[in-house]
Amino acid sequence: MLIVILPDDSRREFDDGVSAYDVAAGISGGLARAAIAAEVDGELRDLHAPLVVAEANGTSGKTAGTSPAARSAGAREVNVRVITKKDPEALGIMRHSAAHVMAQAVMRLHQGVGLAFGPTTATGFYYDFQLDKPLSEEDFPAIEAEMAKIVAADERFERMIVPRAKAVEMCRELGQKLKVEHIETGLAGEETLSFYRQGEFLDLCRGKHIPSTGHIGKAFKLLSVAGAYWKGDASRDQLQRLYATAYFDKKELTDYLTQLEEAKRRDHRVLGKQLELFTISQTVGSGLILWLPKGAVIRQTLEDYLKVELRRRGYDAVYTPNIGKIELYQISGHFPYYSDSQFPPIDLSEREGQKPGEGERYLLKPMNCPHHIMIYKSKPRSYRDLPVRLAEFGTVYRFEQSGELNGMTRVRGFCQDDAHIFCTEEQVADEFRGCLEMTQTVLKSLGMNNYRVRLGFRDPNGDKYVGKPEVWDRAEASLKAVCESMNLPDMSVEAGEAAFYGPKADFVVTDCIGREWQLGTVQLDYNLPSKERFGLEYTGADNAPHQPVMIHRAPLGSMERFVGVLIEHFAGAFPLWLAPEQARVLTVSEKSEEYGREVEQKLKEAGFRVTGDYRGSKLGAKIREAQLGLIPYMLVVGEKDAAEGTVTVRDRLEGDIGAMPLAEAMAKLQAEVAAKTVRQVADGGAPPPPIDRGPKNEY
Amino acid sequence: MLIVILPDDSRREFDDGVSAYDVAAGISGGLARAAIAAEVDGELRDLHAPLVVAEANGTSGKTAGTSPAARSAGAREVNVRVITKKDPEALGIMRHSAAHVMAQAVMRLHQGVGLAFGPTTATGFYYDFQLDKPLSEEDFPAIEAEMAKIVAADERFERMIVPRAKAVEMCRELGQKLKVEHIETGLAGEETLSFYRQGEFLDLCRGKHIPSTGHIGKAFKLLSVAGAYWKGDASRDQLQRLYATAYFDKKELTDYLTQLEEAKRRDHRVLGKQLELFTISQTVGSGLILWLPKGAVIRQTLEDYLKVELRRRGYDAVYTPNIGKIELYQISGHFPYYSDSQFPPIDLSEREGQKPGEGERYLLKPMNCPHHIMIYKSKPRSYRDLPVRLAEFGTVYRFEQSGELNGMTRVRGFCQDDAHIFCTEEQVADEFRGCLEMTQTVLKSLGMNNYRVRLGFRDPNGDKYVGKPEVWDRAEASLKAVCESMNLPDMSVEAGEAAFYGPKADFVVTDCIGREWQLGTVQLDYNLPSKERFGLEYTGADNAPHQPVMIHRAPLGSMERFVGVLIEHFAGAFPLWLAPEQARVLTVSEKSEEYGREVEQKLKEAGFRVTGDYRGSKLGAKIREAQLGLIPYMLVVGEKDAAEGTVTVRDRLEGDIGAMPLAEAMAKLQAEVAAKTVRQVADGGAPPPPIDRGPKNEY
Repeated sequence: MLIVILPDDSRREFDDGVSAYDVAAGISGGLARAAIAAEVDGELRDLHAPLVVAEANGTSGKTAGTSPAARSAGAREVNVRVITKKDPEALGIMRHSAAHVMAQAVMRLHQGVGLAFGPTTATGFYYDFQLDKPLSEEDFPAIEAEMAKIVAADERFERMIVPRAKAVEMCRELGQKLKVEHIETGLAGEETLSFYRQGEFLDLCRGKHIPSTGHIGKAFKLLSVAGAYWKGDASRDQLQRLYATAYFDKKELTDYLTQLEEAKRRDHRVLGKQLELFTISQTVGSGLILWLPKGAVIRQTLEDYLKVELRRRGYDAVYTPNIGKIELYQISGHFPYYSDSQFPPIDLSEREGQKPGEGERYLLKPMNCPHHIMIYKSKPRSYRDLPVRLAEFGTVYRFEQSGELNGMTRVRGFCQDDAHIFCTEEQVADEFRGCLEMTQTVLKSLGMNNYRVRLGFRDPNGDKYVGKPEVWDRAEASLKAVCESMNLPDMSVEAGEAAFYGPKADFVVTDCIGREWQLGTVQLDYNLPSKERFGLEYTGADNAPHQPVMIHRAPLGSMERFVGVLIEHFAGAFPLWLAPEQARVLTVSEKSEEYGREVEQKLKEAGFRVTGDYRGSKLGAKIREAQLGLIPYMLVVGEKDAAEGTVTVRDRLEGDIGAMPLAEAMAKLQAEVAAKTVRQVADGGAPPPPIDRGPKNEY
Repeated sequence: MLIVILPDDSRREFDDGVSAYDVAAGISGGLARAAIAAEVDGELRDLHAPLVVAEANGTSGKTAGTSPAARSAGAREVNVRVITKKDPEALGIMRHSAAHVMAQAVMRLHQGVGLAFGPTTATGFYYDFQLDKPLSEEDFPAIEAEMAKIVAADERFERMIVPRAKAVEMCRELGQKLKVEHIETGLAGEETLSFYRQGEFLDLCRGKHIPSTGHIGKAFKLLSVAGAYWKGDASRDQLQRLYATAYFDKKELTDYLTQLEEAKRRDHRVLGKQLELFTISQTVGSGLILWLPKGAVIRQTLEDYLKVELRRRGYDAVYTPNIGKIELYQISGHFPYYSDSQFPPIDLSEREGQKPGEGERYLLKPMNCPHHIMIYKSKPRSYRDLPVRLAEFGTVYRFEQSGELNGMTRVRGFCQDDAHIFCTEEQVADEFRGCLEMTQTVLKSLGMNNYRVRLGFRDPNGDKYVGKPEVWDRAEASLKAVCESMNLPDMSVEAGEAAFYGPKADFVVTDCIGREWQLGTVQLDYNLPSKERFGLEYTGADNAPHQPVMIHRAPLGSMERFVGVLIEHFAGAFPLWLAPEQARVLTVSEKSEEYGREVEQKLKEAGFRVTGDYRGSKLGAKIREAQLGLIPYMLVVGEKDAAEGTVTVRDRLEGDIGAMPLAEAMAKLQAEVAAKTVRQVADGGAPPPPIDRGPKNEY
């Protein structure tokens, strides 16, 4: 006898052999029809699998949670949660099944298809195929139609478990050489392996799956095809990766596709080229951004703004070199442990008449912290000097795989709006609050009002953490109290998300089409100041040496990534204070050119970024061009304006707002710049998006 | 018979065997006594050497300039200029002889001295010795005394020319192994070699020398001893380099020693540490500057000022990475030809699964030009777009030998205040003028009013130059005309000083103790835009492609070097607009602390860099500390000031300048900042100094 405990703590008795489906059916026919999988004693299970698996060496069933009382009564207890499409796990399970269906469809349509892997992604799924014929978007409708047939046939997903020798034999018979290789290498430790079959399609797979293909429904779509390598190894044959997505709900799919379209329209790589903001040259190198004049205006304006904020908040600017001796990173622990994400060292051995590796070696700095630490260490510090806040727009270099590079948002060289605070333990709460406040101020100035703060704490059971547990406890409690007192929007605490060196807070910003981006960060660090690392000290009021706490913080994160996100957020239409070209003077006819140039000159002298269009073309054409150039204001001047000293102001968003004296127009624009007004951001309304965490967000 | 033509074109007849001494004696006894060498037909000659050297294979003498008329009359003509200590060559000849005398003195005082080389420098001379016993400053008086004896003995310098085999034998007999090695390797091509002897001292030497040791006089001094390597090769034994100097005039020596003392007092390495402006950490690496907060204020203030100037002058800011693929430098021609002065490449081959050197290789950029060129090339350009002016505070890396590194003035990483102008040939003159004007404006703002401009033109007989001769002719004429029209102080044209890629103008600044520094530069470039290099183009008004001219320019040169020079120029006492700490509030007693903090806060809000000293110590002590900290203004506040809202202003230079309302004091300081007033530079009055050319000033 089996006692099933349901999520509402109610208990029902079943026979030993039942599945989650039987449990669902016992509750209601509707639930049985809606059910797609189950969680049994905390583990995901196929809907039709028996709740209790017979143990190999014994007669008793295996149920983890049976209480001593129930056990002594001869009964076993099992916790069961029936999963329907409303549950968060459901979408992933269905999408993975859809990947199998997609593979089945491709194999029906093409001969000699080799199967690799077919996992889910944050927004859908893909399957990697070995196939001589190149697939293209033209093949998508046929594959989708074939998938629809398989879904309509409502084929059941059947699971079978076989010994590894048998598994190899099965894959050989199926002609799936990559699967054979994977069993023999990647799965070498497994005694038994599972396969799933739907209709004629049989695939080595860990699962889990929906009960039958019918549950996939009609809301699926193939998205793109790209090259990929077997297990990411570029020395092996290239595979074709077919990307697709599926939702339970047609509207969700439509929303997602709209968001994709919108994202394509806002693609910073496309807009960056079109608006001449940045370029990447293969002669210079992959992942290295060349900021064109208009993009550089945005960056410089942001940097100037941040510099004012930094000064106001008591930071000291410093400058440090882009390289450092390898010893620096041996002390910090970043070399050789993180050397895969660094550029290889520069070896001076030959210059110094030594054998390779025996002379000095330098790294392109992957972070600024060790350099700032050397500045802290350049003189003895007293508790009276703390906090020391060292800020630098420091350009760092990290080696990202070329396949991971993406415009400005994933790069190999980037400038961090970095700072390091060295403070006493007592000062941590105030400093942490200051960092959060600065990030809030900055995001607000950029119209990024939609964000959440994720506090990353340590895993209470983890043992990778540096520093004393009681210090962590105090720090976490204090950071949480700070965040709570600040009334931060949508604050969440995530255990296990701390860096090994300390707890942290990440700002996850939702852009105006609803996508989440991990941007600003504030991180505590007990590691680098420690005796085992740089051995930082200050003399306390007690005249004894103490170890300071370090805070790493970057409100924007990286100038490259942030401006990339900003381009997409604003779809290239920057608010007045950031716009590379803030205004353009347009003449109604050539008769007003002289006055037009006078207006342009006056705006320039007042500090505006302004150009003039004095060509003989029609005003309508000039306005269209300025609109396409996303220029916030057009100042139209005709003969009447010249006579009266006025300009007719045209707002890119609102159109003609009338004639006014030049001084009034300038005052209006000046006020908008000073207030850093953001007028162009629509609220997003897209489905819940995945977070783009960007490159590894630790120091 | 010999016809001697003197510098005043007068002619005198002499017998064939005469020397320049005989000629001088023929003119006057005074000239014969003052003579120390001669220039004979444009070549330097020892005073006692015969004017005409008998030819090896013939009976006729060798005189280059004999006119056909004289020749047919059986006479030979020879141009002779007697050199006395008033001539510019004299000091170098005397110093080189003094180096021989110093070596003679050292050999008298020590056993087993091996001789290396003993050349002159810009400010004196040295001799490198192989000697087991380490020499120190304590040995200097004895060496100087021994030198004085040799000078008093007025030993004659005798020259002898011997075949190379004999020369080797002589050096062997003298026990001079390094000289033997040098004859066998460095002088392998010479058939005969010259030696000079004074007294018992005999040395392999090219010459020339003064007639006798008495001409050295009493104005010589040993300065320092340092390690050196035989021919700079670090794998060889270390030598001891004894630095010294000598002048004809005692006062000149005293002035020079005073300047040395003054330079020591102003040493930016010492002041940089003392005033906490910068530091160098051996853990980070040699030649890499860590800008401390106070130094960073100076740099950032300079950069902000330059940014305003750049914008006013129509430059566009760009940002480019610190690395670039090696292909970029293969195209530019900087790799492998200049690879000795670059850091070795970063090799990604292993990362990409390739053999070393077969994958991508990156260089730390040694200059910004190739990156800016890629920005120019990122879109098609029309003559209407020109000039394109791209500016960047770009940090570059060059490999200087560790022996050449010196604080901030000779480093391995430095930030150039760089820009590149791409223009038509017709625009060159205007653009060049603009660059010179900007440099003038900037130097003036820094109180550096004592400078000269050196126009470097090509050697008309040289063949290393890129670009058509007629283009060079036009460019040089046009640059010269521009400079002349600008009334530049002390402009000189130096043939042969152009870079191979184009003519240039260097600003040589004299600091306030009279030393010359080569700082700003403007350089034309016909090479990088050429088809053989980057193949730059623009579409002309004729709709055909044309090649633009490039201008490299940097008013300061390098932020590191420039600030290093500034520190020495100002002896650390920066003018108000640059001072890291502009003002300090000092309380008369603790009763005024509240008002003092209020004053400090108001100054902060007005943008001043201000601190407060509210300790209970005596006002006199606080003032002394502020004076030592070189803080331009002290604002002293007492109870009366608190009551009346005043401050008593103390000027670092002029002392107490009285009480005034706070607003008035702030206005006074604000006006001084806005005007960039420089009040602290005294005029220099030191002897003519050598130019510090700094690192190789070419792109």
